[in-house]
Amino acid sequence: MALALAQDILGPGLQRIQREIDAAFDALLPVPADPRARLVEAMRHAVIGGGKRVRPLLLVTVAEMYGAARSMAIRAACAVEAIHAYSLVHDDLPCMDDDALRHGKPTVHVAFGEAIAVLAGDSLHALAFELVADPGLCSDPFVRAELTHCLAMASGHRGMAGGQMMDLAAQGAQFDLHAVTRLQQLKTGALLGAAVEMGAILGRVPEEGRGPLRLYARDIGVAFQIADDLLDHDGDQSLAGKALRKDAAAGKATFVSLMGPDKAREQARALSKQAVGHLAHYGAEADLLRALARFVVERDR
Amino acid sequence: MALALAQDILGPGLQRIQREIDAAFDALLPVPADPRARLVEAMRHAVIGGGKRVRPLLLVTVAEMYGAARSMAIRAACAVEAIHAYSLVHDDLPCMDDDALRHGKPTVHVAFGEAIAVLAGDSLHALAFELVADPGLCSDPFVRAELTHCLAMASGHRGMAGGQMMDLAAQGAQFDLHAVTRLQQLKTGALLGAAVEMGAILGRVPEEGRGPLRLYARDIGVAFQIADDLLDHDGDQSLAGKALRKDAAAGKATFVSLMGPDKAREQARALSKQAVGHLAHYGAEADLLRALARFVVERDR
Repeated sequence: MALALAQDILGPGLQRIQREIDAAFDALLPVPADPRARLVEAMRHAVIGGGKRVRPLLLVTVAEMYGAARSMAIRAACAVEAIHAYSLVHDDLPCMDDDALRHGKPTVHVAFGEAIAVLAGDSLHALAFELVADPGLCSDPFVRAELTHCLAMASGHRGMAGGQMMDLAAQGAQFDLHAVTRLQQLKTGALLGAAVEMGAILGRVPEEGRGPLRLYARDIGVAFQIADDLLDHDGDQSLAGKALRKDAAAGKATFVSLMGPDKAREQARALSKQAVGHLAHYGAEADLLRALARFVVERDR
Repeated sequence: MALALAQDILGPGLQRIQREIDAAFDALLPVPADPRARLVEAMRHAVIGGGKRVRPLLLVTVAEMYGAARSMAIRAACAVEAIHAYSLVHDDLPCMDDDALRHGKPTVHVAFGEAIAVLAGDSLHALAFELVADPGLCSDPFVRAELTHCLAMASGHRGMAGGQMMDLAAQGAQFDLHAVTRLQQLKTGALLGAAVEMGAILGRVPEEGRGPLRLYARDIGVAFQIADDLLDHDGDQSLAGKALRKDAAAGKATFVSLMGPDKAREQARALSKQAVGHLAHYGAEADLLRALARFVVERDR
């Protein structure tokens, strides 16, 4: 698929899901008229009006490929995005990456203070599981329990949080390409993989039918992270909406520091192509996934 | 029930569940031989070898009253305790209550640093939902989904985290008895209530049969917190294993500051008695719950 065509398909898809996710969180998080108001405002700051919504798009696209209702998929997508958002709020804290800018806005702890940022992250974390286990999401409890288990496994110490721990350990350590790949498979890949898997769960795809989707998710996960490292290396900060050039300053091994920018870009493109290859047995219903594989490596933010 | 008798029943019950919960977390959290080791060690520090295990005892006792297998109840109890433990790790952070001592040990951020403390809390949070949604807990997905939903609702901004936000807001504000009660019903009561409710879910008690248990949980929740305020006011720090006299120093309204210690103690005992009254239709199988209602107000730690 040519880049222009990919953008023709992807642009409207991303804009639509960004609107839907914003609207869903707006409805989910009314500000109460009591001392919890600041907490809910901080949660809203973290989840409304920012982010590419790549994970929701993955989840909803896969779910719709298998005939699941879009309204149901949007609620599950909010759960994945709530986990992603909470992880950013906590990662941005002064004791972690100490970032002041996210999605072109002040980070939550800058806008609301550290204590509320910790609590807002925790509350988004709980909200994610409230959403997937809610009988209103899907009447089949098996689906709800499977969504919950998949999301929890991808988020915890065997998934995203474990990857973040490896990232902390990477500062000043001599990580090689194998270690960096493993780190990123946990830190970024686990939740991207969960988004695809949860789409398949909603679409009632049996375990044995999920192989190609899992391979696709694994490849775009690594490609996505290489692109992130490239953006950190030579991206435009005003487009990215967050501080860049942080990896080199922290002396952290990344795909770019280990491979050099040219080889890294080549590798990201190869992975993107390989990801698309895993979708060979699908028809036009997977075009958005193909376009997304292209987008994650060519994006400028 | 006389105090001596309550202790005869309760002592062995608490010791047994403390052993079981420690053993379960030990098995659940093997330390990996990679950079995530420190994270898992921090999680173990937070959940093994400390805490009264009141929430697990509530959950397991109610589950067993209705014939649920103890092994299944212990796993669900670990989920509630993981939520409780994560909340303590985050509440103890310098940006929150800034506590150095918990269960007679250094707090997680003192022992492992703030960044790992944030991540260890987050990882315990995810572990809780991994446990309740795990098909190994219970073969019925309806039970797993209901456990998840109950636990998530009790933990988030409408429950425990919301109560913690009210607690932050209470510093320097003029909270009256109504506001303090509401704060504590969320901060402490929601999770104690979830422990009882999850026991009932495991015991397949239908919603309409849970009324007396819910009333019991509500009353011991408030009684528990009044006792906590009394301990903060005049308890023995070496027994408590944490810093005391913090409420007065922070100028926070508590049951004790608003009612005075004598009236507060009287109120706690009245609530404990009322809690036991809700169990009138149960036989000897509820004796542990009766003993626990007594214990939560008479405890010295």
